[in-house]
Amino acid sequence: MKQKAVVLLSGGIDSTTLMYDMIKDLEVWPLTISYGQRHNREVMAARNVCEARGGGLIHRWKYLDLSCLGRLLPSSLTGIGEIPDGHYADENMKSTVVPNRNMILLAIAAGYAQGIGAKYVAYAPHAGDHPIYPDCRPEFIKAAGEAIQLGTGFTPVEGVELVAPYGRFTKTDVVKLGKKLNVPYHLTWSCYKGDDIHCGTCGTCTERKEAFQQAGVQDPTQYVQ
Amino acid sequence: MKQKAVVLLSGGIDSTTLMYDMIKDLEVWPLTISYGQRHNREVMAARNVCEARGGGLIHRWKYLDLSCLGRLLPSSLTGIGEIPDGHYADENMKSTVVPNRNMILLAIAAGYAQGIGAKYVAYAPHAGDHPIYPDCRPEFIKAAGEAIQLGTGFTPVEGVELVAPYGRFTKTDVVKLGKKLNVPYHLTWSCYKGDDIHCGTCGTCTERKEAFQQAGVQDPTQYVQ
Repeated sequence: MKQKAVVLLSGGIDSTTLMYDMIKDLEVWPLTISYGQRHNREVMAARNVCEARGGGLIHRWKYLDLSCLGRLLPSSLTGIGEIPDGHYADENMKSTVVPNRNMILLAIAAGYAQGIGAKYVAYAPHAGDHPIYPDCRPEFIKAAGEAIQLGTGFTPVEGVELVAPYGRFTKTDVVKLGKKLNVPYHLTWSCYKGDDIHCGTCGTCTERKEAFQQAGVQDPTQYVQ
Repeated sequence: MKQKAVVLLSGGIDSTTLMYDMIKDLEVWPLTISYGQRHNREVMAARNVCEARGGGLIHRWKYLDLSCLGRLLPSSLTGIGEIPDGHYADENMKSTVVPNRNMILLAIAAGYAQGIGAKYVAYAPHAGDHPIYPDCRPEFIKAAGEAIQLGTGFTPVEGVELVAPYGRFTKTDVVKLGKKLNVPYHLTWSCYKGDDIHCGTCGTCTERKEAFQQAGVQDPTQYVQ
């Protein structure tokens, strides 16, 4: 019998690739959480990539609406000010940091994992996230993994294990891997703005475009620009 | 100007004492979170102890209703089965563990702290919690503190600091300290069952009774038994 793993699924490129990657060896329980983002386009994307993969994934997918967290977590992603255009490494991109977001999502996912008897909890930060998102860096992943393991078992060996296998990947590496795994990227959503189609100019759209170009993979995304 | 500290306030003895203790030196921002408990008596207790203390505490108090988390976190406290009677150390008391609860609450409190520019986030586990609650033990506190500090700052020195000063206290020590601080224990709530008055027989009522007796402090609580 396969071990269970709770995967934090935003509906973007990285977490969808991770889900398709892990489902080869594990029974994946996808978990999508709203934390007060400007828009919920990712939630439908998350649902759709689960449905597309089959194998009962859509029945195990869970969506949790914690939108009210947005009032406590100021960020341009939760409605404070405008979404900036540019590259992730740019100074103005710091407004897109949601305070301690990943620790919050991981802590919830780990509690859920403990409850269903899952051995693993997984999320998909990658090296491109490091310049501005502290909760994507290797040292954070290590500390969060220890806290999860200690917080979820009467003895550490019983605790849930944190898995973040793309810590040293670029987004281009993620897309190359996803291509091999037949990830339906046309169903995923990245854009921070959440209009009808991807804007093509915000930080995550810029990164998305470049990743497809650099990976030599056809970009199925419609962009405004 | 005083530094700011977010204090996780359940409305019980330990967190109320902590709040009264910290307010001497810090600007305390109390945060109360429902995570799907059977009852909300603690929420009103939290509000009332803030009001009783004065000094603007009631205006800085924030209540966040995340009751829907209860569906993901199976425990007798969130409605699965009966609340057991007895001592914390008893085997049957394990049903009162809410999977990874404290990491979830701390992660949210730390994100909130980062947003309002607070230097500290505090909670009040004590030594009596250790036998059954993994997320109250010193090794968990250390790991969670590292994750918070790394997750909430672009550099670790900017990060929010976790404070849990009663890690080596018994509950009796907490009550002795609270007596000196004039904590209004008649306003606090412990009982897991949430009827009109404290049951006097569940794990936390048993511990509450013993703490007052051993501290030599008059117990203002009305118990069924």
